[in-house]
Amino acid sequence: MSFAKLDETGRKLEALEHALAILGADEATHMAVGGGEKRAEALSTLAGMYHRQATAPEIADWIAAAEGESLNDEQRAALVEFRRQYTNLTCLPAEFVERQTKARLRAEQLWRDLRAKNDWSGFLPALAGIVDLAREEAALRAGALGIDPYDALMEQYDPGNRAAEIAPIFEELKTFLRDFVPKALAAQEERLAKTPMRPLSGPYAQDKQRELGLAMMTAVGFDLTHGSLSVSHHPFCGGVPSDVRITTRYKTSDFLSALMGVLHETGHALYEQNLPKQWSHWPLGKARGMAMHESQSLFVEMQLARNPAFWRWALPIVERHLGEDWNVPDILAHVLHVERGLIRVEADEVTYPLHVILRFELEQDLIAGRIEAADIPEAWDAKMRDYLGLSTLDNFQDGPMQDVHWPGGAFGYFPSYTLGAMFAAQQAAALRRDHPAFDEDIAEGRFEAINDWRREKIWSQGSRWSTPDLLQRATGERLNAAYFIDHLKARYAG
Amino acid sequence: MSFAKLDETGRKLEALEHALAILGADEATHMAVGGGEKRAEALSTLAGMYHRQATAPEIADWIAAAEGESLNDEQRAALVEFRRQYTNLTCLPAEFVERQTKARLRAEQLWRDLRAKNDWSGFLPALAGIVDLAREEAALRAGALGIDPYDALMEQYDPGNRAAEIAPIFEELKTFLRDFVPKALAAQEERLAKTPMRPLSGPYAQDKQRELGLAMMTAVGFDLTHGSLSVSHHPFCGGVPSDVRITTRYKTSDFLSALMGVLHETGHALYEQNLPKQWSHWPLGKARGMAMHESQSLFVEMQLARNPAFWRWALPIVERHLGEDWNVPDILAHVLHVERGLIRVEADEVTYPLHVILRFELEQDLIAGRIEAADIPEAWDAKMRDYLGLSTLDNFQDGPMQDVHWPGGAFGYFPSYTLGAMFAAQQAAALRRDHPAFDEDIAEGRFEAINDWRREKIWSQGSRWSTPDLLQRATGERLNAAYFIDHLKARYAG
Repeated sequence: MSFAKLDETGRKLEALEHALAILGADEATHMAVGGGEKRAEALSTLAGMYHRQATAPEIADWIAAAEGESLNDEQRAALVEFRRQYTNLTCLPAEFVERQTKARLRAEQLWRDLRAKNDWSGFLPALAGIVDLAREEAALRAGALGIDPYDALMEQYDPGNRAAEIAPIFEELKTFLRDFVPKALAAQEERLAKTPMRPLSGPYAQDKQRELGLAMMTAVGFDLTHGSLSVSHHPFCGGVPSDVRITTRYKTSDFLSALMGVLHETGHALYEQNLPKQWSHWPLGKARGMAMHESQSLFVEMQLARNPAFWRWALPIVERHLGEDWNVPDILAHVLHVERGLIRVEADEVTYPLHVILRFELEQDLIAGRIEAADIPEAWDAKMRDYLGLSTLDNFQDGPMQDVHWPGGAFGYFPSYTLGAMFAAQQAAALRRDHPAFDEDIAEGRFEAINDWRREKIWSQGSRWSTPDLLQRATGERLNAAYFIDHLKARYAG
Repeated sequence: MSFAKLDETGRKLEALEHALAILGADEATHMAVGGGEKRAEALSTLAGMYHRQATAPEIADWIAAAEGESLNDEQRAALVEFRRQYTNLTCLPAEFVERQTKARLRAEQLWRDLRAKNDWSGFLPALAGIVDLAREEAALRAGALGIDPYDALMEQYDPGNRAAEIAPIFEELKTFLRDFVPKALAAQEERLAKTPMRPLSGPYAQDKQRELGLAMMTAVGFDLTHGSLSVSHHPFCGGVPSDVRITTRYKTSDFLSALMGVLHETGHALYEQNLPKQWSHWPLGKARGMAMHESQSLFVEMQLARNPAFWRWALPIVERHLGEDWNVPDILAHVLHVERGLIRVEADEVTYPLHVILRFELEQDLIAGRIEAADIPEAWDAKMRDYLGLSTLDNFQDGPMQDVHWPGGAFGYFPSYTLGAMFAAQQAAALRRDHPAFDEDIAEGRFEAINDWRREKIWSQGSRWSTPDLLQRATGERLNAAYFIDHLKARYAG
């Protein structure tokens, strides 16, 4: 039976994924500094084995033959995802992948070097090459999938996402935010004029911050029998569903930075830990995609942990671990601080979407050939002035050179961040309808009912539905900007 | 060119070995407790991939063809080890391996359960099955290699070791020790009558013990840019040469237990860290075998760290970390304590060889069919009375049920422990001849010249020579019991 052969292949691929995931997490957390070269060799060889086994020509035959076999519902759903994975992995010719991999590695190296030097003109030729390759990739993927080129790029990260649906929603959000950011800032000014910000004092010992992080992440639902918390230079959520590795980094002057990071990664981890275990060796058993994954991390960070209700419960715990004597309004001034800035990764939830929408618009123009790489700085500056009132002219390192995504060739990824934030707000609104005690639960540190809803609606579904269909099934409607806008208004309008 | 294909296969196998080694070390140190089932699945699938690739029939053709190719000395040496690895992996039929693997897993499980219950008769049928399989394996290996059955078992662990050479040397050592153990104990009694033992006080905080361990292991030569120290239930040296993972466990009442363990594992680690890097993807680049590996750990533990000279240098460091106020004779009373006991793994360097020789003798009798599994307890008791004056009659858990080796089917491994101790003594004697400042260096914490000798003579040689040839090239002669006997006399005769 052909489905059985796919099932068997899935088990082999799961073992290689397990090795790649744990070796990857280990590299960032426990590897000796001199172990990198051999680790890179091993990872690259194992990734090659994975690719060879996942793209073997007989898999196409098995998929085709399995379509005609008598399968149950789960198996049929699994087959759809086997096909999607196979198409995604095989729609680019090996010659192209090789060319692109080399160009990406070279552009990323250059980027690391030249960003620090603010050297746009040195970087431009490499970026122009990457843009050409991205257009070529988009055309190849579009041909294989029968969808538009930019959609075909997004499809890798979020199956079913289409620019035609997202663009008007982002337009609505942008229009709202251009008006709302100044209002939120004014409201903040007014609050701070009455009650000045009380700075975090510190120092906060690393081991105490770690204990606090562990206490909060387990309270929110992280299962420490299937995961752990370590330190790494860049926080991440990695590992495998049976052993999820999340990391943070600690500043002794600011416990909120690590704590909010831990809670964000806990959101990712909850998705991984609660995926359907019986499907773990099928593509069907994986999390749906980047936007949905980000919605889970942002659900914990934004809908739970930056919710004022959360701090009525959390503050005594923080005080128990760090010995500080805070009150809720003081801590909220930090947790909900809004600030216009040049850097996306440092942005708060109010200004962040404008950074993403800027990139989404430029990416579409680049892929469609309406602009060239050389036009980016001017277009970037114009949009930054328009959306956030900030200029990045001649400041490339804090402008179009700030992200690794484009040098790394990851076009179509940026929208996932803001879609995640919007999905999370829409999920929270649906949850509040189904479970009116939502904020009361949070204020008392009760996350069972909230997590039960999320497990049923999102986590347990694996990759059974496309991204928009999963959102619709969970919340009762397609993506609607109103939920995120209402969320921001309620929290920041003052 | 066929050699090039072997070389390429070697790189793939190295990547899989890397994954298996790091995943194995991670399992014992950093894995979440609930991650074990999926980890076991991944390890077993990856081990299967390794076995399939390492035993592919075309490898036999490549080896044969490469014999006729124009190769340099290194490549020719590599080819010998490619052949040895291939023969070792393919000389047992798949049907036999499957049967044996099942029986071993079952016997190990039973052993874990029944040892605690001292239930020999429940355990005997499983062990008898394992002995039958070991005889079958020995015959199959002997047929493939053209050597005697027991030698063929030892050959897996130490290529070139032959019972005909080892047995008379062990006989000489046994004769010496039967007489020497009572003398060493009497000398110890006399010393303790003059100066009673000063007990270790403690408590010794784990983090301070860890700092002490790191200070000592790096002083002895461990490269922390290519390795690390963690905690695990059973101490081990694992990982890969570019990232050697050693572990220990800490008792707050006794810092010597962790410290001596760390130094023992450091000895293993030095061998791994100093193997020839350019051969790392060939079997030729591996450490020679178990006896030589144990000689490196015992060199550090016995020839360096339990050497009285060592403590003239080490004691101030211990005091700096743990704040104790010891003198050298007091600490030596602990470090060089001798005691007759039933348990091999708890034995000191004077009594340990008698435990090993007992097993070596019984193993040979079992494989040759001179005794059966049912005869073991009586034979064990007779030898224990004869060699150490202790009885284990009806005390199976501290007698023939104390080790995992036999239920695990590892016949031919035990001699490596005592060969390692003897190799280490012989290497130290040769080193003292070449470098008369040996003990003076140790007393001043200078290990460069000592490690340079070991690197040149042992570590850099990889698997270039058989075990006895490597010893002979390093020390100028074949194994000679006199060096170990002289070492014990000098240290324990009082």
